[in-house]
Amino acid sequence: LIIPFPAIWGHEGAGTVESIGEGVTRDKVLMFPLPECRECSSCLHPKSNFCLKERLVSISLTFFHPIYGTSRFTCRGRKIYHLYGTSTFTEYTVVHEIAVGKIDDDAPMDTVCILSCEVPTGFGAVFNIAKVRMFTPGSTCVVFGLGGIGSAVVMACKASGASRIIGVDIKEEKFPRARTLGVTDCLNPQKLKKPVQEVVVEMTGKGADFAFEAIGLIDTMVATLESCHPSYGVGVIIGLAPTNSQLIFDPMLLLSGRTLKGGALGNYKTRSCIPKMVTDYLQKKINLDPLITHTLPFESINKAFELLQGGHCIRCVLLF
Amino acid sequence: LIIPFPAIWGHEGAGTVESIGEGVTRDKVLMFPLPECRECSSCLHPKSNFCLKERLVSISLTFFHPIYGTSRFTCRGRKIYHLYGTSTFTEYTVVHEIAVGKIDDDAPMDTVCILSCEVPTGFGAVFNIAKVRMFTPGSTCVVFGLGGIGSAVVMACKASGASRIIGVDIKEEKFPRARTLGVTDCLNPQKLKKPVQEVVVEMTGKGADFAFEAIGLIDTMVATLESCHPSYGVGVIIGLAPTNSQLIFDPMLLLSGRTLKGGALGNYKTRSCIPKMVTDYLQKKINLDPLITHTLPFESINKAFELLQGGHCIRCVLLF
Ligand SMILES: NC(=O)c1ccc[n+]([C@@H]2O[C@H](COP(=O)([O-])OP(=O)(O)OC[C@H]3O[C@@H](n4cnc5c(N)ncnc54)[C@H](O)[C@@H]3O)[C@@H](O)[C@H]2O)c1
Ligand SMILES: NC(=O)c1ccc[n+]([C@@H]2O[C@H](COP(=O)([O-])OP(=O)(O)OC[C@H]3O[C@@H](n4cnc5c(N)ncnc54)[C@H](O)[C@@H]3O)[C@@H](O)[C@H]2O)c1
Ligand SMILES: [Zn+2]
Ligand SMILES: [Zn+2]
Ligand SMILES: [Zn+2]
Ligand SMILES: [Zn+2]
Repeated sequence: LIIPFPAIWGHEGAGTVESIGEGVTRDKVLMFPLPECRECSSCLHPKSNFCLKERLVSISLTFFHPIYGTSRFTCRGRKIYHLYGTSTFTEYTVVHEIAVGKIDDDAPMDTVCILSCEVPTGFGAVFNIAKVRMFTPGSTCVVFGLGGIGSAVVMACKASGASRIIGVDIKEEKFPRARTLGVTDCLNPQKLKKPVQEVVVEMTGKGADFAFEAIGLIDTMVATLESCHPSYGVGVIIGLAPTNSQLIFDPMLLLSGRTLKGGALGNYKTRSCIPKMVTDYLQKKINLDPLITHTLPFESINKAFELLQGGHCIRCVLLF
Repeated sequence: LIIPFPAIWGHEGAGTVESIGEGVTRDKVLMFPLPECRECSSCLHPKSNFCLKERLVSISLTFFHPIYGTSRFTCRGRKIYHLYGTSTFTEYTVVHEIAVGKIDDDAPMDTVCILSCEVPTGFGAVFNIAKVRMFTPGSTCVVFGLGGIGSAVVMACKASGASRIIGVDIKEEKFPRARTLGVTDCLNPQKLKKPVQEVVVEMTGKGADFAFEAIGLIDTMVATLESCHPSYGVGVIIGLAPTNSQLIFDPMLLLSGRTLKGGALGNYKTRSCIPKMVTDYLQKKINLDPLITHTLPFESINKAFELLQGGHCIRCVLLF
């Protein structure tokens, strides 16, 4: 990633509207790394969510505020960059109204905050992008990466009736928790004698029905495509590859009938759909608790990064 | 393509069963370059057609008989290779029963022969793979290549209610006929000042709903993906790229929500679905006539290739 410094990081979070103009109330909100302007061709299309006011793709992740095109933060007169228009690693941030969704007043901020990115990204990859449920029940899914997004993918595959869920990660510390969420088989590519995609193809006969990439590496994206069945397999790319990297594969992989898709925030229209998931959580229709393994005060942010790198942490919520 | 010689070429054709064993009748049949064994995981899956008895992908187009794994032709004791298990450029060929479909007795062989590959490939790319009709009517489609397959794609886009069909070809001789089939805008990439995908994006606002590659080149496959809308565009690869070539593109093209798919024979289960298209043709439910521009005796095969290269020919049917 090309990262201009200094910047306020953090892209996922819940908060309360603080500086308010006329007609604006002191609501509880989620901040979304993907806005919903309700005016562009993506927002107006019934099936898509990638609001064109987000410049994620066109300016390849520069850290300006994607909507204002400039920065709203300064520190002692010096410009500070935004991250994905949210910049949540701060007590007070500036977020455009089209990137904010009002949530229930009684929502617990220390759990629903993960609904601002992780959970919809993982759930939506399964429900909206792959549409696992629409096909024969008892399908086989492979999930590359068992971190935050991958864990949410696993939960959604299970909820969709998948009969076999193969989890792939290089950190075996992730395996026990992944099994409790629904993973039936765990693979560590570093311990295999063959490429992991070949092992998956052997385990499943000819390939999985669905394969998800939740890591963000080119090699595992190609492995995702190769892991799925040649004629009806669907590969879903969720991970963000390094800037300017290139996916390289033989188009014959597609000719036999495979599908390769991608999506941001699980193809949910952020402001329109995600606040309902908060309500669903309050009504115990969805479970978020297994996805939060740690909670720390904001001052311990460096400790949180250590935990994340260590392998035992899925998400560490930081509190102000 | 890696082509062992000598080989009997030709992969599309209609014929009459000649050497018959017990229980076999002297039926009119189509010969399919993709078999349907009705036993493999692709054949048993409700949505896929890429019979695993076809080794197209796994042995990358070697010209052995894909089912027998060896050759059934000899000439003066010397082995002759097959092409796609059909080898139709001969008066008598040997085709496996799983690659043959019985058709109506009164079917005219000199037109329905193009139902053995060209027509289902093009129609199915639109009806089965892209599913143009399922989305909002009045969609915008781009078709790269206005040859046999591309023309069938154009007809199917029109039949699906597309309001705008952009045709792309370097041979402008193809444009008048393409317009009669439904193309609303013709582009010759060699006459444009910018890459054709940029022109398509400008013409359509942000990109087409659907883009089809019916040429078989890597560059136009990437252009196909780039021509479609970042968040809901669907790119369909129909063309066969040169053996061992690699598709190379930035995965960010998918992250915003694009879908890239491919398929053989338009995802029709060949024996089960294509003979019905013959009946549909006899009942005037589908029109094949614009796709056949020339008919010649088999002896004039070299003339037929010249016509095809010249640009005025869509398909030239060869008669025995
Ligand atoms: N598309 C979207 O809308 C969207 C939204 C959020 C995050 N993301 C992306 O999703 C990806 C995953 O995010 P996350 O929050 O789950 O990250 P994470 O760090 O929690 O999880 C990544 C997991 O991948 C594992 N891993 C790393 N290298 C591996 C390898 N070579 N093989 C197998 N496993 C490997 C790690 O051990 C870890 O468990 C990131 O690229 C992130 O940028 C995309
Ligand atoms: N997926 C399948 O099941 C399937 C079935 C049949 C054919 N095919 C493949 O589909 C492709 C098209 O087949 P066809 O029979 O229509 O071929 P064709 O020769 O009739 O048509 C190809 C067209 O592409 C045009 N063209 C060539 N280079 C171009 C370029 N750089 N830019 C724009 N246009 C260009 C040509 O002028 C021609 O009009 C081939 O690759 C073929 O192997 C695939
Ligand atoms: Zn928008
Ligand atoms: Zn995120
Ligand atoms: Zn089969
Ligand atoms: Zn063909």
